[in-house]
Order: sequence, then C-alpha cells, then structure tokens
Amino acid sequence: MADQDAATSVDRKPPAPPVLRWDEPPEGPVLVLLDQTRLPAEEVELVCTDVPALVRAIQTLAVRGAPVLGIAGAYGVALAAARGYDVEEAAGLLADARPTAVNLAHGVRTALDAHRSAQQHGATPEAAAQAALSAARQLHREDAEASAAMAARGLALLGELLPGGSHRILTHCNTGALVSGGEGTAFAVALAAHRAGRLRRLWVDETRPLLQGARLTAYEAARSGMSYTLLTDNAAGSLFAAGKVDAVLIGADRIAADGSVANKVGSYPLAVLAGYHHVPFIVVAPLTTVDLTTPDGASIEIEQRPGSEVTQLTPPGASRAATAGTGAGAQWAPLGTQAYNPAFDVTPPELVTAIVTEAGVVSPVTGAGIAELCARSRQVTIS
Amino acid sequence: MADQDAATSVDRKPPAPPVLRWDEPPEGPVLVLLDQTRLPAEEVELVCTDVPALVRAIQTLAVRGAPVLGIAGAYGVALAAARGYDVEEAAGLLADARPTAVNLAHGVRTALDAHRSAQQHGATPEAAAQAALSAARQLHREDAEASAAMAARGLALLGELLPGGSHRILTHCNTGALVSGGEGTAFAVALAAHRAGRLRRLWVDETRPLLQGARLTAYEAARSGMSYTLLTDNAAGSLFAAGKVDAVLIGADRIAADGSVANKVGSYPLAVLAGYHHVPFIVVAPLTTVDLTTPDGASIEIEQRPGSEVTQLTPPGASRAATAGTGAGAQWAPLGTQAYNPAFDVTPPELVTAIVTEAGVVSPVTGAGIAELCARSRQVTIS
Repeated sequence: MADQDAATSVDRKPPAPPVLRWDEPPEGPVLVLLDQTRLPAEEVELVCTDVPALVRAIQTLAVRGAPVLGIAGAYGVALAAARGYDVEEAAGLLADARPTAVNLAHGVRTALDAHRSAQQHGATPEAAAQAALSAARQLHREDAEASAAMAARGLALLGELLPGGSHRILTHCNTGALVSGGEGTAFAVALAAHRAGRLRRLWVDETRPLLQGARLTAYEAARSGMSYTLLTDNAAGSLFAAGKVDAVLIGADRIAADGSVANKVGSYPLAVLAGYHHVPFIVVAPLTTVDLTTPDGASIEIEQRPGSEVTQLTPPGASRAATAGTGAGAQWAPLGTQAYNPAFDVTPPELVTAIVTEAGVVSPVTGAGIAELCARSRQVTIS
Repeated sequence: MADQDAATSVDRKPPAPPVLRWDEPPEGPVLVLLDQTRLPAEEVELVCTDVPALVRAIQTLAVRGAPVLGIAGAYGVALAAARGYDVEEAAGLLADARPTAVNLAHGVRTALDAHRSAQQHGATPEAAAQAALSAARQLHREDAEASAAMAARGLALLGELLPGGSHRILTHCNTGALVSGGEGTAFAVALAAHRAGRLRRLWVDETRPLLQGARLTAYEAARSGMSYTLLTDNAAGSLFAAGKVDAVLIGADRIAADGSVANKVGSYPLAVLAGYHHVPFIVVAPLTTVDLTTPDGASIEIEQRPGSEVTQLTPPGASRAATAGTGAGAQWAPLGTQAYNPAFDVTPPELVTAIVTEAGVVSPVTGAGIAELCARSRQVTIS
C-alpha cells in the first residue's frame, strides 16, 4: 500500500530530469547534468560541451556524490574522445577534480582503459571514442543495478538488526538518485524500507555548509512521499538521547582497506553518538568506493574547501555554481574570519556496525572482512 | 604582551554599544538594547518603551543569552513600574517569554519582589518603581562581578587540567559580553586565557540555526584580537579526532539539581565527543543558572522554536527581528518540509568535567556537589 501511495504521489508530478545524460545534438555530443546547486528551487540543466566545463561542474558541486561522479568522469573521457580532444590530458584533469572521491578516479580510468585498449587494437579514433562511451554506459547501468542490490541487502540487514519493523532512520548529506545511476546508496535503503511500509520517519540532517540534506535529500524524500523531518546537524544529539533514532544510514566517499570510512563532514560525530547510544551505524556504498591501496583512515586525503562556504551564504536560487568559493555570497561572519572547512571526515571501523555493498555485507567491519568481500566479488566478475 | 596587543587592537575601534542600558529621555524611561540579530553587519540600538516590545525583543533573540536575559527581565519590571503599567501582569509576560531560561524568571522575580516589598511598606508608586530599578541595577552590577570571578576561576581550572599552558579551546554559541552584565561566562574564561597569553586558538562553532557563533562569538573574538577559527558545528568531530581540541568551554541556560546542563542545541554532541576523546568539557555559568527546583535533566522543559529557522534563511543585515519565525526568509528546503528545532539540549552530569560558577567550581559534577555549592554561597550572601 505504501508503495502504491508513493507511486501515485510521484506520478502526479512531472518526472524529474535525470541526474545526467549523454546527448547527441547535431553539433556534437554533450553531457547534460541536472544542476544540483539550483535544487530544490529550480530544475536547471547544465550542458557540458567539453571537459573543462565538466571539471568546473564537479568542483562547484553541480554534480556530486560518489557513484555519479564515477559515471560523470567516464562520460567525460568519452566526451573528450568524441570531440577529438587529448584524452589522456582530459582524464588527468577529471581524476584530479576532487581528490577524496575515489569513484571519480575509478570511472575515469575505466573509460580511459577502454579507449587505450581500442587504440592498441588499431581502432579508428571514432571507434576508440565509441569504446570509451560504451564503457561509460556500462558503468552507468552497473551502478543502477548496484543501487538495487544495495537497497535489497540493506533492507534485509535492517530487518535483522531492528526486528520491530517500524524504523526511524537518520541520514546525513544526500545519497539518493541524484548521486547515482540508480536510486542511490543509503537513501535507496530508506526508500526500500518506505516501499515495504517499514519506514516510520526519515530524519534528514541539513548537512552544513552546503545543505545537501535540506536541499536535496528533503527534495528526494518529498518526491518519494516519505515521512521526513529536517534538522540542523547539531540537533541529532537530542534525537539520540530521546531514543528516537533506530539506525543511522550514510553513504561513503572512500573506504580504506581497514574499513575506515571517509564521508561528508559530520558523519564521524554521528558515528560517535550512535556508538554511545548503541544505535546501528550503517554505511551503504558500492564496491567501487573501497580503495584497497589506501591502507587506513590516516592515509585518506581530506579535501579542504574554501572558508567562504562557512563565512558567507549564497541564497537558494542564486547560481551557486557561479559563486561557490568565490566570495560572492553575503557575509555572515565578521570580515577576515578564517574558517576550517574539511569536506569529509573519517570514521574508524570500530564505530561502523556494517558496510553494505552490492556484493555483500561486511559486519563486523574489519580489514579481513573487506578483503574477503573484494576477493569474492572479483571472482564473480571474472567467472 | 598578548594583553597589550589585544587592548591596542580594541582601542583602535570605536567602543561597542553596551548590550543593554537604562535611559531616561524626557518622555519617560526606556530600555535600550543592542539588536543582536543585526550583528556583525550593523550595530543598531533597539529602544523598548514598554514590556510587550521587550518581550518581542527577547522572543526574536534581539537580546539573548542566559545572564543578560535576567538583567533585561529585571529592567523590564522596572520599566513597567516607572511607566505605570500593571507590574504583576508585565512580570508574568516577561517570565514566560522564553520557558527554558531560568535566569529570565529569576531576574523578573528579583525586581518584582523589590517592587512588592516597597509597596507593602507603603512606598509611593514612584518609590516602588525606584526600588525595582535599584534591584535591576544591582543585578546588573552583580553579574559583571560574577563574570570576573568565573573568568578567574575558569582560568585557574584550565591551568590545573592543562598544565601545558597553550590552550586550543572549542566553544559553542555565544557567551561573551553580549550575554552578560560583564564579559560573559565561557567566553570570559577564553578571554582571560588570551590576556594571560595562554590561548593558542579559539575554535568557534557556527551554531546553527541562528549562527550565534558565526555572527556574535566571531565578532567578539575579532574585537578582542584573539586567534580564532570558525567551523560548521559538524566539523568539530574531525578536530577532536585530530587531537586539536584541548578543552570545550560552554555556557548554560539551566542547571538542574543533579548537575544536568541545558544549553544551546549542539552542546550535548560536543559533550559526547569530548568524553570519547578524553577532552575536558567545562560549563561556565553564574549560580543563578542553577535551579534546585528542577531535579534532573528529564524535568527541564525544552523550548521548540519555529521550523522556519531551519527550512529558511534570512540574509545577514536584513532585520531578523522582523522576520524570525514568520516565514519571511528565503526557502532552502522544499516547501512543506517539517523541521525539528529544539533550542536546547541536555547534557547529563557524567559528561561534564566541571561546572565553574562565581562562587566556586563543582568537579566531579554531582547533585551533592551542586547542593553544597549553593548552600555555601547562600551562607556567604546572608553573612
């Protein structure tokens, strides 16, 4: 019933533009992004005709979220190839656009490898470009499949951990269809619970400084007909203290070999609160987020973003893409105020109850468990 | 040296308008407030000619912070008396303006008792009004003295707990001269450390939703020449994890008989983080904040504020006093989004390292320790 209600409520609205799509107008292929800096006020499409435009879209967070960054990176390589730009240089620019997001580098490499391999086999530039595009499309499709698998595994895990059946889930940042080729990561699990009639409430952290929770997760929750409530990040503490959080579901930007999780700043304090209150803290992320070459949390490079994201504000509806980090917003803090603005923080494995991937669940979270899952999944891919 | 530098830097600026003052223009007395919703962009004075105007100033946070609310409440009673309004009714309106702030009720009662007592002794209305005003002025003076005593005791405590001598202190919300008849509570301790050359850095939580940290604490820190850095509330976690916080200093809005501390929302998560990282968590508050009639944390009434403070934003410089809670800001979240917006949270005594008052320090924090301090201070007052 909940499922049908949700479907009806969604059907009444015009369909949302896809988060990204490859388009072939007469003047050459383009990558079209839904500009996430303009949501929820406006649904504006951003047309990228070359890689510098895409790099800028990635850096200003017009497109953001670990899995979709990988897909965007792969399409970016395909775009450079199709338009006859230097593919190796384009791949380098794209991979470096945001240092912490391992999926971005992975997506870029996937399309680049396809392009190189076609070239090595004597393909024409057109055929090599087509190979890169096919690789990007496959990544896109696989990501949608991974979303569905994570949602199913995450829902089953919630059922095991919370046998009561009516869940109050707290989430941070944005992890839905806007960050994915499918329905997302952590949000996809909450959506599956909603469809199964098992979501009592989604608590949505606003997620300062860029308010991805208030702007994007609230938008996706409203579109899906969920019962949701927005809160400032620092109000989560009293929800835990009042026993009103049954589980925390978050995504990940990078998972190290020891199970340390880099995710949007504010995740670590939630993990400490969840641990203190004996509430499950569940990370939902595709296997591409796991980086076995990063041994531990201390080895994860954390992107420091401009202090102006904290000291200033850009009203919604204004083009954040045009002003992010440029000092063009209105000033909250006294002029000259320095800010500490890390994009991510790192949660150690002992505070993570489970990591849910498309290939399986790791719980308890240990280096051995992560290694075993990765090895198993590689066998499946090879066989 | 640090002291002299700070003094020089302050001296270069015109003096800040006082947080509140009693004025006697020819057309009758008024209470003049520095409108804190306009800081740091503008220093605007708000003239209250009657109690409803003062109640509105309190509710829109034009004047805010536990100790100064008590002083404002007392002057409010004096204002009603001097202008010939119904003093009992005015006292009721003032005491109910913000339910969690025990100092407000205390200040109102102090001036009301003075007024009643004068009446019972046959004073003229003018003399009774003068008695209420004297009580308000005495409260104002005592609060300044209490600030100085808390600063001295807090500085000594820091010296005991952190013998290294170079402190990195994290604070939340605003607890300086803007909330006090003197230099404040937690901020006054940080300021004393700065003057003693022992403050390495003040980490300033921005304090969503109303950004008292970004707007007011940063303003006071800049005016005092401190080394300070602003951060989003949720970025405190990575500072703790990196070992960059030596102590947390916060104020309190109400302290229950068992030592539970109600303070600005976001204080409790900091206490949990501090406990997890073995960092001292110190509450600095005048004795008037202790409410022995509230037995424990669960008995503290928590004010729920309008959701629009979370779903919308009012740009700095716009009159927040005119728009707070009225839905007149720009909308961040999708229309119709519900928000959970408690003004305070409660930290249990086991997470508080010490409570610093003007009369002494309670550590460890226990009901017996609180009771003893209150009894001792009462004896001193009587003797």
